[in-house]
This record gives sequence, C-alpha cells and structure tokens, in this order.
Amino acid sequence: MNEFDLIRRYFSRLTQGGEGVKLGIGDDAAILGLPAGHELVVTTDTLVAGRHFEVHADPAGIGWKSLAVNLSDLAAMGAQARWVTLALTLEQADDAWLAPFASGFGELATLHRVSLVGGDTTRGPLSITVTAMGVVPAGRALRRDGARPGDAVCVTGTLGDAALALRRGADLDGDALRARLDRPTPRLAAGLALRDRAHAAIDLSDGLAGDLGHILRASDVGARIEADRLPASKEFLRHLSAEMSRVALQAQGGDDYELCVCLPPDALERARADLDGLPLTVIGEITVERGLRFVDGAGATIAVPPHGYRHFDE
Amino acid sequence: MNEFDLIRRYFSRLTQGGEGVKLGIGDDAAILGLPAGHELVVTTDTLVAGRHFEVHADPAGIGWKSLAVNLSDLAAMGAQARWVTLALTLEQADDAWLAPFASGFGELATLHRVSLVGGDTTRGPLSITVTAMGVVPAGRALRRDGARPGDAVCVTGTLGDAALALRRGADLDGDALRARLDRPTPRLAAGLALRDRAHAAIDLSDGLAGDLGHILRASDVGARIEADRLPASKEFLRHLSAEMSRVALQAQGGDDYELCVCLPPDALERARADLDGLPLTVIGEITVERGLRFVDGAGATIAVPPHGYRHFDE
Repeated sequence: MNEFDLIRRYFSRLTQGGEGVKLGIGDDAAILGLPAGHELVVTTDTLVAGRHFEVHADPAGIGWKSLAVNLSDLAAMGAQARWVTLALTLEQADDAWLAPFASGFGELATLHRVSLVGGDTTRGPLSITVTAMGVVPAGRALRRDGARPGDAVCVTGTLGDAALALRRGADLDGDALRARLDRPTPRLAAGLALRDRAHAAIDLSDGLAGDLGHILRASDVGARIEADRLPASKEFLRHLSAEMSRVALQAQGGDDYELCVCLPPDALERARADLDGLPLTVIGEITVERGLRFVDGAGATIAVPPHGYRHFDE
Repeated sequence: MNEFDLIRRYFSRLTQGGEGVKLGIGDDAAILGLPAGHELVVTTDTLVAGRHFEVHADPAGIGWKSLAVNLSDLAAMGAQARWVTLALTLEQADDAWLAPFASGFGELATLHRVSLVGGDTTRGPLSITVTAMGVVPAGRALRRDGARPGDAVCVTGTLGDAALALRRGADLDGDALRARLDRPTPRLAAGLALRDRAHAAIDLSDGLAGDLGHILRASDVGARIEADRLPASKEFLRHLSAEMSRVALQAQGGDDYELCVCLPPDALERARADLDGLPLTVIGEITVERGLRFVDGAGATIAVPPHGYRHFDE
C-alpha cells in the first residue's frame, strides 16, 4: 500500500471538502483559503512512542491525543481550528493499529470540523507529527504577553487529573481520570469565548507552574497563586492518596490541556456566561512584583518549582 | 536545554522577522498574515534516519535536504515559499550534530527568505518533519490535473544524477553528483515563472515514471516520452557504467527534485526566456490515449514500470 492508498483508506472521510479547502490531499501541496481579514495560526507537535505514549497503548487514544495537543495550542490563541497535516512514521502498515488510530484521530477532527489536508507516511520508529492550522480575525489572537497587574489568573476545568492517572498507572480503576490523560479535551470553544475578554492565555501542557511562568516572563509581571483554589475533580480527590502532594500533581503534573487565562476581574462574570457550563476558576492574581509565588490558605509561601516537561533537560 | 533554548540557540537567525510573520516562535502558535487575494499552500514531509539518509550522514546535508524536499513541493504548485515549522526528534541534544544541521537548514532557508515560525523538539529515534507554507494568488496555483493532449511534457535541469550517486555510493568520486543527492535545489523560481504558462506540474521526488503518472491520472490523459530526450548532466554521462540502465536511473531513480511540467508548445519559448538559464527540455507529449509510454529512438516501446518510492510496498 502506498501513502496515497493508506491515507485514502483510513482517513478519507477527513479529507473531503472542509471550510476553505480549495485543494486537499493528492497534489504536491494543499491550497487553502482564509476568510478576508483573518490571520493564519499554526502550531506543530510530535508524539514519540515510548516517550509520549506507551508503545502498546490503545491506538485510538494515540490518534485522539496527537490531534488534541495541537488543537489545544490553537485554543490558547483563540483561533478557530480549520486544517491539519499528519506525518505518520510507522514500523509497518498494520490494519490492527491504523484503523483504530484513524478512528480516534477522526473522532476529534470531526467534532471540531477540522480537515486533513496533507500527510506523509514513512517507515521507521513509531512517531506522529501533527501541524494544526486555524484562523483568527486579524490582530485579535490571544497571546502570552498581555497579562497586566491586577488581572485575575483563571483556569478552565480541573487540574491534576492526568498527572494522577499517570502516577497511579495500572493501579488506577478511575476511568474518568484515565480518559483525561488519554483523551484530553482541547478547549477550543473556551478559547474563542475568552478571546476578546482575556489579556493573555496559554494551554497547560507542561504543568501550571511552568506554563504560567511563560506568561509572566512574556508579560514582564508576576503572579500570586493560592494553592487551595486550584480546581480539582471529584475523581481526583477520591483517588488522591495521603502520601501524594496535591499541589505537585496540580501545578507541576502537566497534560491538563486546560487554558490558563489572565483577565480583568470585571470581565469574569460575562466570560463565565459564555463558557457553556465549563468552570472558570480564579486561582490568583497578576502582580507587579516579578516571579511566581504559590501560597497556602494562611498566606505562607509554598515551594513549587516550575517543573515544565523539558525534552532535553537530562 | 529545553526546546525554546534549543531553537533560540541554533535557529535564532531564521526566526527573526520575515514577511507576514505577526508572531513567531515562543507563543502557543505562530500568527501569519497572507497578502490580500492570496491562498495558502501547505505541504509536509518527513525524513527518517536509516531510511531517507544514513545515520552518520553529514548533518548539514540532512538539514538542507529536509527543507529542500518540502520547498520542492511548493515550487511544483507555483507558490512563493514563506514559512516553515520544524519538528525534530533527536536521540540527544548534541552540539556536534545540531550546529551543522541548523547551518544546512538555515543556508537554504535564507536563500529563499523562508522564516522558521514553529517547532517541536522531542527525544527519540532521529527523524525530521518539516511543514512548509507558501502563498499564491487565488486560483492560480499549478496543479496536477490540468494537462491536455498536445501539451509538451518538459523537465527542468537534468535527471538521474541523484540516483546515480546513490547507486555508486562510496565508490563515487563525483562531487557534483553527490551534491545533487545530498543538497537538491528546489526549483522555486522556475515554479513561479511557469505558473501562468503551464497546465500542470509535479516535482520529481519518486522518479519521472511514477510522478508523471500522477499527472496523467489526475488529468485523465496519457503521455508518450522519448527516452533519448531525457536530459543528462555531463557528470552523469561520465560516471554511468556500461552495466547500468540509463533510462532506469533517469526515469525511475527519484530524488531529482526537478519540475515536470505540461505546457502548450507555443508557450515554450517564452517560458524558457523566464527561466534564467535553467534548461527546460521537451521530453515528450501528452496524448489522448491513456497510459505512460516510453519509446526509444526508433519509436519502439521500452518497458519502464512506474517505480515510485512507496514506503509501505513491502
């Protein structure tokens, strides 16, 4: 099977039509039309077997997640997701792997009306690189560099579920936590809703402490975060053992794929009304004083080093 | 070193400014502006160690080629190259490899004023995925599906150099042939010059027989190609041994990264005048009769099966 056949066979329903697709898969390149007055938003992320997922993990989950982590970056920009390319390196063309992979990838793509417009399939150690493209009205993307002192620091959803699932591993009977790790939900609708209200945003992939640090440095401000306010799911609280650090899982764990946004406190109420029931929790505020400080209920500083996931730290 | 440091250190000069770059590397995604009335052209290609290049090959050549194969696809669409993302999977962050890789990649990017707007670095078996983006006036991209009976089938440059270099391997003392394999020249200027004259185009990555076959199927036509007219370089002719099939190297070898274009014979002269000295050789013509037929000097059919590089044929 060559790469055209492979894409046609497994991904055909993702390559048909699609908003702005003038020419899809099958030529040297795709041709895409942006709406007038819009800019292009582009991001790329790779998942490598044995590093970002277990080699024998459910292929449907790998397909979903490889797309989700990219769409999450578009969400953090307030972009409307439109198109993706998929570069797939496989040991072999194996139906038993490819069919569920395409199904998981396709499920999320269909949910967000994202079209697959290009691809490359190569033989080699399993890895997946997705490049996701979206559109945003010119000049209105959400960036990291706009946070201002006095802004409320907020997060969507709950934090720490994926980190706890990873920590507990096979020991875990909590399907909801496991799903948060394997099938994260990119907060695209929230990104669109918050775009014109928030001053800055980032998606939480490497953990709150590390990711919020990027906003603080880009915006040249600091933040004071109240650890007790970090939102937790019922499943998280139920599965948390006494010997585990709640703040470490919630602030350093990563893989949350929630949005962290900074917005003026008076915009909070209307922002929440636009979020269709997704919780938006105030966890602290932006300060003039530089640095990121976590405090406990009594106001005492807690040490939470930025433990971002850094691929070449070792 | 984290991925931001890594990109900053080795690729910084490719990430500064650039046409249409509203926001480059360092946020969740890049923001890019297209000129009014233009469409986006996007392609992606992966090179895997041990498959597309030797693990111990010169990193500068790998850097150059990983970009070149993508720019070649943009050339075949008649697009102006603008932006790229680079997903780099490495066993380790190794200066002795990264510095020359970035230098080779950067040399070609600078030549074509292409900006690096996004990236991901991950740890794992060495592979490189580039996504290249360009712009084209709306509706004017060169496609595969416009060839018409009577069109002259032409190729830029010469064919077979890379295939001969690969065949001879370490045995080869021809630097010019070796350079054609390791540092192919994407024909971007030729693509732009031919865009409004040609009916169809493709870049020759998998070999003429396979790639021209894509044009023929997409355009629902056939072609008659005169094997004796396939253009060869002096170095090719000098290094060709008696036991090697010239037509196999030139029509099935791949890695040429020349353009194959179909254009009306009366457009040839003006097309050539725009090519700035790059040869454009007529090798045959598009026929109503379907199928691709190679003929020798006496008009007898030669068997040249489409031997495109198919990653999952085995």
